[in-house]
Amino acid sequence: MALIVHKYGGTSVGTIDRIQNVAARIVRAREAGDDIVVVVSAMSGETNRLIDLAHGIDSRAAGRELDVLLSTGEQVTIALLAMALEKAGCPARSYTGAQVHILTDSAHNKARIRDIDDSRMRRDLDAGRVVVVAGFQGVDEHGSITTLGRGGSDTTAVALAAALKADECQIYTDVDGVYTTDPRVVSKARRLDRITFEEMLEMASLGSKVLQIRSVEFAGKYNVPLRVLSSFEESGPGTLITFEDETMEQALISGIAFNRDEAQLTVSGVPDQPGVAYKILSAVSDLNVEVDMIVQNVGADDMTDFTFTVHRNDYEKSLEALRAIAGEIGAREVSGDTRIVKVSLVGVGMRSHAGIASKMFEVLGKEGINIRMISTSEIKISVVIDEKYLELAVRALHDAFELEKEPAGKE
Amino acid sequence: MALIVHKYGGTSVGTIDRIQNVAARIVRAREAGDDIVVVVSAMSGETNRLIDLAHGIDSRAAGRELDVLLSTGEQVTIALLAMALEKAGCPARSYTGAQVHILTDSAHNKARIRDIDDSRMRRDLDAGRVVVVAGFQGVDEHGSITTLGRGGSDTTAVALAAALKADECQIYTDVDGVYTTDPRVVSKARRLDRITFEEMLEMASLGSKVLQIRSVEFAGKYNVPLRVLSSFEESGPGTLITFEDETMEQALISGIAFNRDEAQLTVSGVPDQPGVAYKILSAVSDLNVEVDMIVQNVGADDMTDFTFTVHRNDYEKSLEALRAIAGEIGAREVSGDTRIVKVSLVGVGMRSHAGIASKMFEVLGKEGINIRMISTSEIKISVVIDEKYLELAVRALHDAFELEKEPAGKE
Repeated sequence: MALIVHKYGGTSVGTIDRIQNVAARIVRAREAGDDIVVVVSAMSGETNRLIDLAHGIDSRAAGRELDVLLSTGEQVTIALLAMALEKAGCPARSYTGAQVHILTDSAHNKARIRDIDDSRMRRDLDAGRVVVVAGFQGVDEHGSITTLGRGGSDTTAVALAAALKADECQIYTDVDGVYTTDPRVVSKARRLDRITFEEMLEMASLGSKVLQIRSVEFAGKYNVPLRVLSSFEESGPGTLITFEDETMEQALISGIAFNRDEAQLTVSGVPDQPGVAYKILSAVSDLNVEVDMIVQNVGADDMTDFTFTVHRNDYEKSLEALRAIAGEIGAREVSGDTRIVKVSLVGVGMRSHAGIASKMFEVLGKEGINIRMISTSEIKISVVIDEKYLELAVRALHDAFELEKEPAGKE
Repeated sequence: MALIVHKYGGTSVGTIDRIQNVAARIVRAREAGDDIVVVVSAMSGETNRLIDLAHGIDSRAAGRELDVLLSTGEQVTIALLAMALEKAGCPARSYTGAQVHILTDSAHNKARIRDIDDSRMRRDLDAGRVVVVAGFQGVDEHGSITTLGRGGSDTTAVALAAALKADECQIYTDVDGVYTTDPRVVSKARRLDRITFEEMLEMASLGSKVLQIRSVEFAGKYNVPLRVLSSFEESGPGTLITFEDETMEQALISGIAFNRDEAQLTVSGVPDQPGVAYKILSAVSDLNVEVDMIVQNVGADDMTDFTFTVHRNDYEKSLEALRAIAGEIGAREVSGDTRIVKVSLVGVGMRSHAGIASKMFEVLGKEGINIRMISTSEIKISVVIDEKYLELAVRALHDAFELEKEPAGKE
């Protein structure tokens, strides 16, 4: 008998009918002999409705009270799903994050999970119950409700799977797997049967909306087999996310990710002295803002330009913070732009192949697309370009790297 | 410096604007030097929205999961009000029932408060914060969320006032006090300056929607001065609910209460033997249904008719349960009617005055209103009549007992 953690996102539980469909799917999995723990998100639209309420009070609403507010979204879903399971004759019990002691740090709105007490869930599973847990939320050591940030329900699911040593963590979503890129942008995009944790990490971190990045980190760290599959279709094995192995298809590039949620900040004309980078970044990280790409150019006059990207929601306050310290660090100018996107090629095959970056820049150059920032890692090349070129760039790269074709060597 | 518990119902926090008004009122109370603990209900309409969701899954939704669902309503409000207070520069912190350890029994959907741990609230008050607590909800010894039943936020407020030994518990509502009867039924209805706990208990238990009955019980038991006042007007002292004292106006009748939420059940032709009443009532109370009026008539043939009233929501299952035991107890028939109302005269003055019941029956008889059941207590006379006569009966009684006039002897 396998223990499987299911996770259903907002779209999959967006209406009463869909919640009943999820219940029916869980009942079938139970009949097939599996023990099930289910993690659910807020019904689609609910989190935005709650955020709108908060913004009615304070356009910068954040912190402790926002978490108290937002966590109600998942709480509604767990109750309804548990009711639907009970109604279908399947014993079930719902729990908030606090009730199953998903202990997090106190970084409200983006808390991190520290520990999970599985004893209560074990008791319910032993008693033959389905355990329904609210995703996205936890509780800090003071008993305050915390949330993990958007998409945090995936993290909850993987963390529960790790704590319970589950056999698989299945992420049910509105797509039937991980694609070479967003099919809404490139119609020829192809579903991947398998992808490595590393690739998936890069894809997720770069804005592929399928999985939340921390969930993939967790899954990799605790070796939780992770599967993405559709909550709307019975068929389809989805995409399995695992460690790289010999039998895997050896694609040069697995996919093209992009991210429209970033904004660019530039601090220009800074004296190139030790400690300047620290001062600039700490001004932003003190606000609990995560910095993504960082690029620094040293000019001829010992002055440097420092450019980085942050989430668009954090743009205004970051700009303010940088302007506040501009004088102190002797910067000439602080500027920024929210109308940019990041596009990235991702693939473990890059490790053994040279020339991919130059081919990428060539393809973009031919289309007349100017590159603003470049950043590379072992299995990824990212560029920041003007937002208006996003679709053009992704389609041109998908074609040039022939991602619509199954990789060579695969049966 | 006084410690005041404020309680705002669903209408008073029904929109963002109204929540901001409540915040402004609390800020003024703080500026006047009071320490404030606020209890809030769900935004108006929210509880019904949640119940509709539950009914989409199961038309008989009840129990543990319904409480998980419904408790989100108040949780939304506490977060928004705490945000509004913080935005207005007033330090505040929100708590769910579980977070301030409002310990209840495990009777889901109608739990009773057993104990409250005031240490957390004390710490916040000492630190100069307004404490915002979700009404209507608690937590049982297993950590499951419970709710106190509709109107339970009043009970939460009074229980907190008792636990904190507050100087006054102020119930802000959409009316400016307690009236001699519902002004929507009798336009001449008059606001009472004071009313005794006993009278208020009878008024509340009989369906006057101003206060929830358990809150008045609690207030009486722990001697918490309770004041009902309007959340929409700055003026008006509202109605103070206290113990009877010498200086109080001595009205014969304080008010006329009525209740449209009851249904009548009759078990006819039961052999009049010891234990029959117990069997009948336990069949219903085993369902956790509360029985209100009970009347028994013994006929000439040693057969008895047993009639009682329950909440309309409990009518069908009660009828079923009675039919199931009808054979066992030898009853001739089980019947019932949901189209009835209870109308009651309430007043401590009854203690020292005879003839009020006969005057009441005379007034109703003159209007051609048939009385189905009668029940009396020391300070109340209740009758059950056909629903269609409700307004006629209340107006006729209000006129006959001259409730629109200030009681004699008052300045």
